[in-house]
Order: sequence, then C-alpha cells, then structure tokens
Amino acid sequence: MRWTHALIPTHKEDPSDAETTSHRLMLRSGMMRKVTSGIYNYLPLGWRAIRKVEEIVREEMDRAGCQEILMPIASPAELWKETGRWGVYGKELWRVRDRNDREFVLGPTHEEVVTDIVRNEVRSYRELPFTLYQIQTKFRDELRPRFGVVRAREFIMKDAYSFHRDEASLDETYRTICAAYDRIFDRCALTYRPVEAATGAIGGSVSHEYMVLSDTGESEVIVCDCGYAATSERAEGKVCGVPSDDAPRPMERVDTPGMKTIEEVAGFLKVDPWRLVKTIIYEADGRPVAAVIRGDREINEEKLAIALGADLLVPAEAAVIERVTGAPVGFAGPVGLKGTETMVDHSVEPLTNVVVGGNEADVHVRNVNIGRDFEATAFHDIALIRKGDHCPRCGKTLDSFRGIEVSQAFKLGTKYSKSMRATFLDEDGEAKPFVMGCYGLGVSRTVAAIIEQHNDDDGIAWPLSVAPFAVEVLVVNTKSEEAVAVADEIYEGLIGNGVEVLYDDRNESPGAKFKDADLVGMPLRITVGDRGLKKGIVEARIRKSGEQSEIPRDQAIEGILAILEGLE
Amino acid sequence: MRWTHALIPTHKEDPSDAETTSHRLMLRSGMMRKVTSGIYNYLPLGWRAIRKVEEIVREEMDRAGCQEILMPIASPAELWKETGRWGVYGKELWRVRDRNDREFVLGPTHEEVVTDIVRNEVRSYRELPFTLYQIQTKFRDELRPRFGVVRAREFIMKDAYSFHRDEASLDETYRTICAAYDRIFDRCALTYRPVEAATGAIGGSVSHEYMVLSDTGESEVIVCDCGYAATSERAEGKVCGVPSDDAPRPMERVDTPGMKTIEEVAGFLKVDPWRLVKTIIYEADGRPVAAVIRGDREINEEKLAIALGADLLVPAEAAVIERVTGAPVGFAGPVGLKGTETMVDHSVEPLTNVVVGGNEADVHVRNVNIGRDFEATAFHDIALIRKGDHCPRCGKTLDSFRGIEVSQAFKLGTKYSKSMRATFLDEDGEAKPFVMGCYGLGVSRTVAAIIEQHNDDDGIAWPLSVAPFAVEVLVVNTKSEEAVAVADEIYEGLIGNGVEVLYDDRNESPGAKFKDADLVGMPLRITVGDRGLKKGIVEARIRKSGEQSEIPRDQAIEGILAILEGLE
Repeated sequence: MRWTHALIPTHKEDPSDAETTSHRLMLRSGMMRKVTSGIYNYLPLGWRAIRKVEEIVREEMDRAGCQEILMPIASPAELWKETGRWGVYGKELWRVRDRNDREFVLGPTHEEVVTDIVRNEVRSYRELPFTLYQIQTKFRDELRPRFGVVRAREFIMKDAYSFHRDEASLDETYRTICAAYDRIFDRCALTYRPVEAATGAIGGSVSHEYMVLSDTGESEVIVCDCGYAATSERAEGKVCGVPSDDAPRPMERVDTPGMKTIEEVAGFLKVDPWRLVKTIIYEADGRPVAAVIRGDREINEEKLAIALGADLLVPAEAAVIERVTGAPVGFAGPVGLKGTETMVDHSVEPLTNVVVGGNEADVHVRNVNIGRDFEATAFHDIALIRKGDHCPRCGKTLDSFRGIEVSQAFKLGTKYSKSMRATFLDEDGEAKPFVMGCYGLGVSRTVAAIIEQHNDDDGIAWPLSVAPFAVEVLVVNTKSEEAVAVADEIYEGLIGNGVEVLYDDRNESPGAKFKDADLVGMPLRITVGDRGLKKGIVEARIRKSGEQSEIPRDQAIEGILAILEGLE
Repeated sequence: MRWTHALIPTHKEDPSDAETTSHRLMLRSGMMRKVTSGIYNYLPLGWRAIRKVEEIVREEMDRAGCQEILMPIASPAELWKETGRWGVYGKELWRVRDRNDREFVLGPTHEEVVTDIVRNEVRSYRELPFTLYQIQTKFRDELRPRFGVVRAREFIMKDAYSFHRDEASLDETYRTICAAYDRIFDRCALTYRPVEAATGAIGGSVSHEYMVLSDTGESEVIVCDCGYAATSERAEGKVCGVPSDDAPRPMERVDTPGMKTIEEVAGFLKVDPWRLVKTIIYEADGRPVAAVIRGDREINEEKLAIALGADLLVPAEAAVIERVTGAPVGFAGPVGLKGTETMVDHSVEPLTNVVVGGNEADVHVRNVNIGRDFEATAFHDIALIRKGDHCPRCGKTLDSFRGIEVSQAFKLGTKYSKSMRATFLDEDGEAKPFVMGCYGLGVSRTVAAIIEQHNDDDGIAWPLSVAPFAVEVLVVNTKSEEAVAVADEIYEGLIGNGVEVLYDDRNESPGAKFKDADLVGMPLRITVGDRGLKKGIVEARIRKSGEQSEIPRDQAIEGILAILEGLE
C-alpha cells in the first residue's frame, strides 16, 4: 500500500486521554480513532492487525475441529428471560427495542442463542461432541470504558460453545481448546499465563483466563512458586496474620462523632486498622446478609456469592441496611443485627477485642469478641487475596502480577441446557441436558495486548505474524528519480512475491518518515536513498533489534526475502 | 469436514414460511435458521458461502485500490443529526439508547461516520482521491422482513465511500468500482445487469443498482432494446396513451354515496378507470402539494420529490388533507384546492372531461378540464413507469423484468460534506467540500441471489467459486471397511491438496445421503461404494450438469483435481 493513497494519520504527540501504552500507540500510529466513549473506528493499519489475529484464531479453531458459524448481534429478550440472565446481567447488557417495541439484547456473549440452535437441531448422543464458534462484534455497555480497545463498549470477540454428553467429554474438549489457545497466543508472540478465574455472569463450575503480562493490565493475578495462579477475583488463600492474642476484655460503646473512615476511627481509638472489623450488608438473591472482614482487607464478592450459593449478590439498598442495623448507612456492626445471616471471613476468626460499627449513628463498639458478643452463621474464605497472603495449596507466600485478560474458558455444565430444556437422547433412550463449555477470546483486545508487549520509546515493534505489513519501503527523497525508481521496483517486486508492503512514498522530510516508520513499527524497514544507491545498496533495518544491514540493490528482493525468513 | 461432526441440519420437506427458492433452499440445506423475524443464524454451510463471497468482494475492492477499515455498528445520534438523516430516515433506522440514555443508531450505512473520520484526518487535495470500505453487519428495522436474507433486519454488507476534489475524479472512481462490481458478480457466476436507480434515503444525483435477474426478485426493472434500463422507482418514460379527444363538456357534480374505489366510481359513472383522475395530497418539506395522475396509474414519489426539489416527501396527514380540500380524507380533487401547489403528471395533460374527487364527502365531479376548471402549477413526469410505456430515450415500447438488487452505487456529490462541513484545502488554498461517492454491496443477499440462479428441483447447484466445499465425498455404506478406508484416504488426500471437502461419513441410507448431496449442492460429488471398488473405481458426478464419470481408485486424487480444474 502506498502511503500517499492510504489513511494512516500518525501523530507526533501523545494523545492526552490515553492511559496505557497500547491505547496511546494505537492512536498515535493512526490504527484507530475514537468515535465516542468506548467505541472506535479501526483505520487501515488497525484493521489489518485485527484481521491478522482473526485469521490466526480461525486457523487454530478450525484445526481444533471447531465449526465456524455466525449468530446475530441482536438476539430476542425472550431467550435471555429463559435463562434468567435478562434479570441478573445488569446494565452492561445493552438492551434495545425494535419498531414494534419488542426487546432485544446486543449480544455480549451467545450462550442463549447457541443453546437455542442446538436444542432445535441436535437430537442424539451420536451427534456429540461438537464445538461451534464465531468471530463477531460484541457489545458491553460498560460503566467506565477505558484503555482504548481493552475495555470498549463495542469490540471484536471469538466465542465458542461446545456440547457434550458428559463431563469427561467436556474435559477433553476443554483441554483441546486450551491447547488451541496456547498456539494462538504463541503465534501472536505473547508472553501469557493461563490462570484460574471466577465465573461471573457466565456461570459454571470451572474457569480459566489467559493473562498477558502487562504492568498496565486491569487484572491482578495471584501466583505461587508451586504453580498456583488465579485472578484476584478468584484466588483463594490464607490472609496473612496479625498479632492478636490479647485476652477478651469487656465490650464498650464509644462515641466517634463525624468519623467516617477506618483510618479516622483507628487513629481516634489508637488501634491498628486491621482491628476495625468491617461489616457490609448485601442482598443475596433478595435476602439480607452481613459480611464481616478485617479492617485492612476487602470482601471478594464472587467468593461470598459462591459461599452463599447465591445467583445474584448486590450491596444492600439503604432501606434494607437501616432495617437490619437499626441505624443509618455507615455504622453497621455484627452485634445485634436483625434477620440476617452473618458470614465471617477466616481472617477474623482468631481476633479478639476488635472494634466494630455500633449499629447507631456516630457510635462504635470496642473489645468485641466472636462467640461471646455475636455469632458467625459460618466462617468462610471471602477475602480478596493479595500478594503476601499464603497459598491455598502449599502455604507459601503469594506473589502477584498485573495482566490483560485476553481469553476466558468456562465449564458451564448444564447451567444453560437445564434452564432452556436443551436435551439429547442418550444411548439408553433417556433425554439428558447437554453438558456445555464456552470459550471466549478478545480479538481486538489481543491486538492491544500484543502492542503492550512489543513496543519501545519510538513506537510499536510488530511481531511478523500480526504486523499490518511485513515490510516498509521508505524512499528518502521523492525528488530523486533514481531512488523512486528503485523503491517502486522493490515495492512491486515484493508484492509480486506475496509480501505485504507499506511504501512510504510521501513527499515529507526524511526525519518525519523515519520517525513514522518506527512509530507504525513494521518488522523490516528498507530504506532507499541516493547515498546508498551510490554504493549500490539499499539499507535494511529490523525494527525490533535495530539490526542494520546493506543489501546490494540488484539483489534487493532476494535479500529482503532472506531477512524475512529469519524474522519471527 | 466430516458430516458426523458438522451441524448441517437438512430437511426433506419445504419450510412452510419460505416464499422464494433461495429462502426455501437455505433453510432446507441447513445453511441458516431463523432466530426471529428478519434475523438469522448462519450455520456452517451458510457461513462458508458468505465468507467465500466476502473474500471475492475483499480481493476485488483491494485490487481496485480501496482500503479496508471497520467503523462501529453503534454510531452516535449527534452525527445523524448533523446531516438531518436522524429526522428524515424514518422507522427503518434502528435507534437505541445506552445506559446513560444517549441515543445511537445501529448503522444501516455509514456516510456520517466516514465523513466524520475524513473531516478530522484529511487536510489537503494531495491526499485525494481515496476509497475506504468495510464488510460489516448492518441493521435495518424493516416493516416487513421477508424472502429470508434478501430483506432481513440484520444482514452483511460491504459499504465503500470515496472522497474526491472534483466530480471528474468521482466519475473515474465510480467507473473503477463499477468495474470491480462486474468482476465480483462475474466471479459469483451471476447473470446481472447494472441499471439506473433512484437515490432514496442515501441521496446524491446519480445512482446505479446491480440487478440479478430473478422471477422472485423484489425489484422491477424497466428496460428498452436501445439499452435504457432503470428500476421502476427511477424509470422515466412516456405513459402509454388513452383515446381521449372528446370536446369539453360542462362540469357536473355527481353524488357517489359509499363508493370508495376507482372501480366502483368508474362502474357507476360508466367510464374507463383512466378517466377517474386521482389527486393525492402530500407534504413536501412540510408544505402541502397535490399530485394529480390518471386513474389507472400510480405516482412515483421519488420522481415527485425530485420535481419538487423536496428532501422529505410524505403522504399528508388527515388534518392537512381536510384543510386543503375542505373535505374528509378520500374525496380530494384538483378543483378548488386551498393553499397547495398542483403537480400534474404528463399523462393527464391531453385528457378532457375527466372525473375527479369533489372535495366533499361522497361527491365526484365529471367533465373536468385542465386550464378551464383548475390550473396545473406544473406538468411533470411523476408516474410509475411500467412495461408497455414508452422509452424516454428512443420512444420504443418498454419491457420489464424482475430482479434482486445486489448492489447500489451513488454519486453523492457534496450532500454529506456540506452538511457536516468536511472540507479540504485545494491547490489554491481554498477550503472546499469533499466530493463523495458511496458503493454498497449486499453480501448475504448476494448468496441468496446466487442460489436463485443456481438450483434445480433437487436443490442447490453451487458455482465452484462460492461453494461451501468444492467436493463432497460420499461413502455409500459405512459398514464396508474397504469403502470407508478408501473414502477416508480420498478425503485426507484432497485436504492435503488444499481442496475443501465435505465428507458424508454418516451411517444413513444411501438414498438419504444422495438426496442430501443434491440438496446441499457441492459442485463435485465423489461416491465411494463397494460396487465401484470391485471394478477398481470411484464415481464422480458434476452437480450442475449431472455428468458422471469413473475414476480409477488408485488415481482418485489426480482424477478429482483434474475434474475440478475444468469446473467453473
């Protein structure tokens, strides 16, 4: 592609509203432009990179025996009501109406639609197992879209759904698709790690995310030397201990006027923040629940929901909080709650003489002791585990890293097939619900993740496998007839050899063109200038390593092809 | 792909709700399934065919020098308000709101979004011309979705937009893209014809549609031996005459109680229907206009709007009709209208002593004569031209055919760039609005059009270029170990040679499998059965011609490749 005929609007300056490297570089290199919050135009370079990733995904899914289909973006609300997700999915589910006021969902995922296909078309165990997938624009009406395409409202995803007669068959396909994911991310030249993950709005029993290591990643992953790795939303563990072994003292009411934060109260009472045990009121499938945790830690709502067996867990509304605590919002404590279960994190179990909310405005209670002053309905691991806590498997100290979640796989089991009555006839003639798996992979997000791992101060340094173009041919001075003739010839010659070439034929200063070449980051740059031509050569420079070499101009094509052979 | 692992749910029976051949065959052959009105799932065979057409479109657009991008499906209402289309597009524009109640459009076309890109990124005439295109899921909230994917609410389209400094450059690109369209439809093995078309909601001065000839097509095309061809929405011409040369008689009021239709009144008054001249009240950009036409003909609203220079022409509301006619709806006539222009079709000009509505309930007036009893503001060609009328170029009698519109190109001129203030700096330093073209091509609809032209009583007969698979290998009896071994070998061997193969390895009756092979219609069927193997051969059958041949089993791959070479 000749740059003079291409829409590659590069910018010298960093955009002001880009928070991450990939977001910044995708804007600066003219890969994309924002249309409105979380919604982007992909311009030629950006779209070419996305299509490269798409093709890798398609090849590996096909190789894994999956069948490509396309389901609609707009799916009828009726299907979402069958599984109950119409009610529980929340505002991220972009709901729309047609001209007849019928409700639709702009699909963030397609479990309902694919299960509807399969319940209508598949009858027998003999047709199982199989996996359907699609590569499609998806919608998620994010509260806070950010990081460019990483958390967008409209984005491109590969989603796959497998159907089985039993768990053993699901396990086998789950492994097959994880192996395909390994190949996909290897081919995208990513450093990644599969980790245990929470199941969230998709559901099911087991889930793994593929995390691409990145300091600006939104996700925190908890890891142990023993091999344990899980997202912080999922991670189990033992919260690191605190020195609390003093003998129980008598409970005591304290006025704490105007003090709102843990730090204010701890400072006033001269105790460590951990001793200020927090009580948070939730509604779990509509019933009020108090969750109790050490003052220096946070609740993991995903684990709390699982512990409660709840489908929908949300912070309680003010009226509920006032009813169960008898006090305004902000003063909840575990002593004397009315009509709630009290779920206590294991970290609180060994503590004595803690400070809690007084269930009364501007009041705390100190020297509270579990068992004596309030009863736990149950002790559970409901804390957000972090670096420094202890591994649930081996007990060693946990570490953490940040990452971008590029894919997630779920063992759904019969969650969708049961609620949608999707059954097959087994060998014994009995109707059984399909056992299902689902496997998402963020295509546009993977492009951002690649850039996060392949860049330097000058711009992007594309791996060859996903580069918009393999080679950039740069003619130093468009006024030199000889240089233009040689560059034209190399450009045409490479295209004739099936090489994708970006040809910077613009009448710009050499400095601007070299800077742009580094910014847009094609793996190999070929510079054609008078100085080199006098020596009978053109210059080759590998973007990633900076390695330069000279190629005789009359063997330019062979020379370039040879360098490309050696590139990753 | 092995049929045992593929979701290809064929049906023996015709679906009850399919109105056209392509709709019927796409359902029966398991290419797609309806999700809800106008919205479909594309199953593996259907999706493969669509992807084949997509790739042909992509290759030819790239070859024509166009750049592929991707704009979002959800575009902000603000952009549509800038051009006024938010107001005039009507209910087909699928409008949605996000969680913050901001309005969006699910794009049926992207003139606004692409013009917004270009006004932000392109500054100089030196960057012109260029063409951007995308292949994308589009939305149109049709009142009456029908004919399967031909008139769907969610469908796949290629849309392209070209930007120019002047009309001459636009003309050149317009020709280039029409040439690309010729190649695309040739490669899709379609019999088609480019015809002049109306510009509708897209706008601009000149437009052409590519029509695929099909008896079940929704569009009527008016053609003349001289080469003139236009859609009936667009066609000009001379309405065929009627014998009306009687001398004017005195105007006379007639009571016509309860008579609503032209036929009722004509029968009662004993006159030919053409003499009952119709008067229809419209609002053209808000002002009332009466359109007058012979009783046996219909108004072409597109031509009427152009004659009036109106952006928005809609049938007038009841209150407006009552105000200008002084009567209830249904009795309008041209005599004594208040505050309207009166546009009269040329066909009415030579008539004398016509019957018109009386502008009074249950009353008509006869022996009305133009000039004497009412004045025409202007005479225009505002009739829907039909077969039997006369060519606007050569005067010969016009013919017509039915077709499916698979693409449409528009010379937009500055319609969008002016309203959106999208300008570039010309050589003289002056800011000028971009001159634009736009070029749509229905991808999913093209697949249906191919099936309309490539089928027989037994099913689809795919052209090789767009067939989901080139070859179907059919093993007659899966209980024959030898046949299965040979079929497996051929299947693997063809895949190894880069041939796309559907392998019917199902344990079904030979009859059912042969019927399904004809239904799904791969270009070449290879039958592997014991009877043939005894003779040392496998059977080849070309789906389209029915031509059969025998290939020695030990040269099966070479033999099959040779037959494929010769297929179209």
